[in-house]
Amino acid sequence: MVKILIVGGVAGGASAAARARRLSEDAEIIMFERGEFVSFANCGLPYHIGGDIKDRAKLLLQTPESFLARFNVDVRVMNEVISINRDTKTVTVKNLLEGTEYEERYDFLLLSPGASPVVPPITGIDNPLTFSLRNIPDMDRIINAIQSNKPTHATVVGGGFIGLEMMEAFHQLGIQTSLVEMADQVMTPVDKEMAGFVHQEIRAKGIDLRLGTALESVEHHGNGLTLSFSSGEQLETGLLIMAIGVRPEISLAKAAGLKIGELGGIWVNEEMQTSDPFIYAVGDAVEEKDLVTGKQTLVPLAGPANRQGRMAADNMLGARETYQGTQGTAICKVFDLAVASTGKNEKTLQREGIGYEKVYVHTASHASYYPGAEVVSLKLLFAPDSGKILGAQAVGKDGVDKRIDILAVAQRAGMTVEQLQHVELTYAPPYGSAKDVINQAAFVATNVMKGDVRAIHYHDIESLTDDQILLDVRNPGELESVGCFPNALNIPVDQLRQRINELPKEKEIVVACQVGLRGNVAYRQLVNNGFKARNLLGGYRTWKFAQQ
Amino acid sequence: MVKILIVGGVAGGASAAARARRLSEDAEIIMFERGEFVSFANCGLPYHIGGDIKDRAKLLLQTPESFLARFNVDVRVMNEVISINRDTKTVTVKNLLEGTEYEERYDFLLLSPGASPVVPPITGIDNPLTFSLRNIPDMDRIINAIQSNKPTHATVVGGGFIGLEMMEAFHQLGIQTSLVEMADQVMTPVDKEMAGFVHQEIRAKGIDLRLGTALESVEHHGNGLTLSFSSGEQLETGLLIMAIGVRPEISLAKAAGLKIGELGGIWVNEEMQTSDPFIYAVGDAVEEKDLVTGKQTLVPLAGPANRQGRMAADNMLGARETYQGTQGTAICKVFDLAVASTGKNEKTLQREGIGYEKVYVHTASHASYYPGAEVVSLKLLFAPDSGKILGAQAVGKDGVDKRIDILAVAQRAGMTVEQLQHVELTYAPPYGSAKDVINQAAFVATNVMKGDVRAIHYHDIESLTDDQILLDVRNPGELESVGCFPNALNIPVDQLRQRINELPKEKEIVVACQVGLRGNVAYRQLVNNGFKARNLLGGYRTWKFAQQ
Repeated sequence: MVKILIVGGVAGGASAAARARRLSEDAEIIMFERGEFVSFANCGLPYHIGGDIKDRAKLLLQTPESFLARFNVDVRVMNEVISINRDTKTVTVKNLLEGTEYEERYDFLLLSPGASPVVPPITGIDNPLTFSLRNIPDMDRIINAIQSNKPTHATVVGGGFIGLEMMEAFHQLGIQTSLVEMADQVMTPVDKEMAGFVHQEIRAKGIDLRLGTALESVEHHGNGLTLSFSSGEQLETGLLIMAIGVRPEISLAKAAGLKIGELGGIWVNEEMQTSDPFIYAVGDAVEEKDLVTGKQTLVPLAGPANRQGRMAADNMLGARETYQGTQGTAICKVFDLAVASTGKNEKTLQREGIGYEKVYVHTASHASYYPGAEVVSLKLLFAPDSGKILGAQAVGKDGVDKRIDILAVAQRAGMTVEQLQHVELTYAPPYGSAKDVINQAAFVATNVMKGDVRAIHYHDIESLTDDQILLDVRNPGELESVGCFPNALNIPVDQLRQRINELPKEKEIVVACQVGLRGNVAYRQLVNNGFKARNLLGGYRTWKFAQQ
Repeated sequence: MVKILIVGGVAGGASAAARARRLSEDAEIIMFERGEFVSFANCGLPYHIGGDIKDRAKLLLQTPESFLARFNVDVRVMNEVISINRDTKTVTVKNLLEGTEYEERYDFLLLSPGASPVVPPITGIDNPLTFSLRNIPDMDRIINAIQSNKPTHATVVGGGFIGLEMMEAFHQLGIQTSLVEMADQVMTPVDKEMAGFVHQEIRAKGIDLRLGTALESVEHHGNGLTLSFSSGEQLETGLLIMAIGVRPEISLAKAAGLKIGELGGIWVNEEMQTSDPFIYAVGDAVEEKDLVTGKQTLVPLAGPANRQGRMAADNMLGARETYQGTQGTAICKVFDLAVASTGKNEKTLQREGIGYEKVYVHTASHASYYPGAEVVSLKLLFAPDSGKILGAQAVGKDGVDKRIDILAVAQRAGMTVEQLQHVELTYAPPYGSAKDVINQAAFVATNVMKGDVRAIHYHDIESLTDDQILLDVRNPGELESVGCFPNALNIPVDQLRQRINELPKEKEIVVACQVGLRGNVAYRQLVNNGFKARNLLGGYRTWKFAQQ
């Protein structure tokens, strides 16, 4: 009778326990959780604080009792595994309620300890008005602080998922909010020009967004905090959330001499097995293989954790399932916007020295003549030689999750942008377009690959040379209502054939329109008439939002 | 200077004209359209009748003037190509306004004539209160009839896309509506048990749905019609829409001696070239290759038509692009539901003699603890040997388009259900789940492939033998509130371990729950305890809706 011990009772651990029982009725399965709760909805915590999820009980997906009844798993909350004794294949467990210690033998041990919030050593940060958010007790403490202190202002440090969600939660509660981020953008999985849409949305909701700003010290006084920033500015706030990131929980693994990867996560092979063949590890604590680069990566996300837990259970019980690599597919709601990505972003590709091309499209989420269509702004990164998808990012009010999901699957399947042209997606006016955002992005990317268009990008517009002319082919009315480039010549696309002689043949014509579509029509016309030209991909819209 | 003539100015033809101009500034391009309008939103017509799209002008995407200005295409509306003279490479054109005829030479000719509504030879059908809906004038006639006659009752014959959309349009206008369909289900791209969800929705909205009913005769009297059905019943109605299907428009091609396929569409090769190398054809009028079967198929949908038009332009101008086959991905809004599919359905696989397995899952469209989650009911068909995806169908109020799009891309990429387990989709509580519908369907399918579950299906429940026992593992409260199977033993899953001895080891235990998930837990427990068992995939929910 195989005996499986599981450390950690949330995503990966809980998935593994349930799967192990389905595979074996005989296995003895014990799940240790040092906290009070197992299998809670950690991704739902900010939404309960903000009031979207009214009922706290909804966050408690399983209890020790329900786990026992359904899966015959011995769930021991408030029991912390404090050491692994690999030679005897035992763990030492501390019962946190009784203060006692005991040993438990294992045939296989699964580590699913997760990751813990990084709290930097900032002067004064250890005060009763500063919180992180990882679990139910953290959430309860924050709610309690809001209800007791009734702060009129809150500050969130960190513009990642939890930071953005907490910002929105405070805003929903009517609390003035500052969001402070050290980088020059929020939501680092996307590139800065895509984050620009998010910045605008955040500011439009009245949030005090401070980019490129580090928190340097905190002073607690009376019922408030004074925050001092790298900018020299100070801010009075009633509540501070630290959400600058998480770090794998590896202390147990490290003390047991398990191999730790270069990125600081527990090393595992493709079967989720640590350097000790009797110990598996999954979830936020482990390093896993990146699908694009093949290198080790740390991706603290729920989807991979759940699937890894399921797979580790398979393998502890004799299968040889292999984890197929992580894309880091992610999405975040930021007020009315969704921002999502999969695969590698441009900054990472640059850092890794991986060659890429990029295209931008801005297309309606469904037929524009049917009510409710919203612009999906999509960035697609692909390999210039093979055309393989390297990554994708999207922002918009509707249909963003769908487009990134489609591209995540296409990327995982190894599709090229040429193949992506042919995908046949659901179309009826309420849901899509006959040529979907995805098809259009693939058309543009294939045009780039085949040399049917020579691209120029938003970041090149500032540094045009004297041998280049910026030609805006939008209508004069648009320039007035939407805004215009500095120093651009304006000939509307529909007048270009008549007025083409106004353009100098010896210069390169940099064509721009609102999103790049009319620009392409004008570009082709110019090139077919013997002009040198480039088309600004993503048009004015990408250029404009890159500055937000 | 190449001269391209295009017959038909909607989807395929208009896409081809625009693409051809982008490729060549020199080409002479003339587009003939026998109607008054080009490039109109044919998929939007029912929504203007129903009032969702208020502004008729929104349906007119391009005009002859805009086509000329932007693409230098000579668009000739009310000009019908009446014959193709292949030996002289000319067409004869009739100017419908002036009644004159003229010839026009071509280097390449593109046929994009579309498909016309089938109107069967039913006695009395030719009357002023009976309409089909294909184009703007048809739409205007229907609107005019509604406004003039103010019918209190309308009848739609045909439960396909247009029939369902017209049914909803009438309902929105407050007109009592009957929907009459000869088959035993609406929306034939999905199988009957999936159409059951749609039937329930239609009836719940107060529509008089008559399945298995054929219209046999129509009598026009005063300001109404008396319809007589195969059932012997009669119905008084004020307006009749015939929407039983469409037929490729091949008269021009046939008269010119172009090869017509066995299904009655214009034959084309993978480059969209007809049997005459100087004549291409695209869209609803052509037979194209089915992605799954490799056989010829007729798929009158906008997405393929648009992409084929673009590709035909490429090839007329010297490229060798090949069409990659059609999946028939489609979606329809039916009141609050979306119903969608891709690939082959079960009936077709049976007819074609293609081996398949199927699984059903019913899973929340996003984290169930976050507001607004709705059940997505998904059917996945796959090859039992290779695990390749053969087709998928989904119904629900949220996230249906996304799931079918994901599966359409996965199918096109040749993914197996085993690979599909690993897809990494966007997850945050408002958008998805850590284990998405797609992952769950793939898990179940892989379990079936590996023999980790022995499946039984809804249609087998009626014919259980004396050697089988139906075991419902839901809670007694659910049986009362949701409904129950006849003759099922009830042991809630969480009591099964204690009560397993109540079950006979010599019989096969057919396990059922609400959707199949707890059934799988119980199934595994039984099998691991030495019982013979099967799990009802899709559970009570699939069984119940199959009867709607």
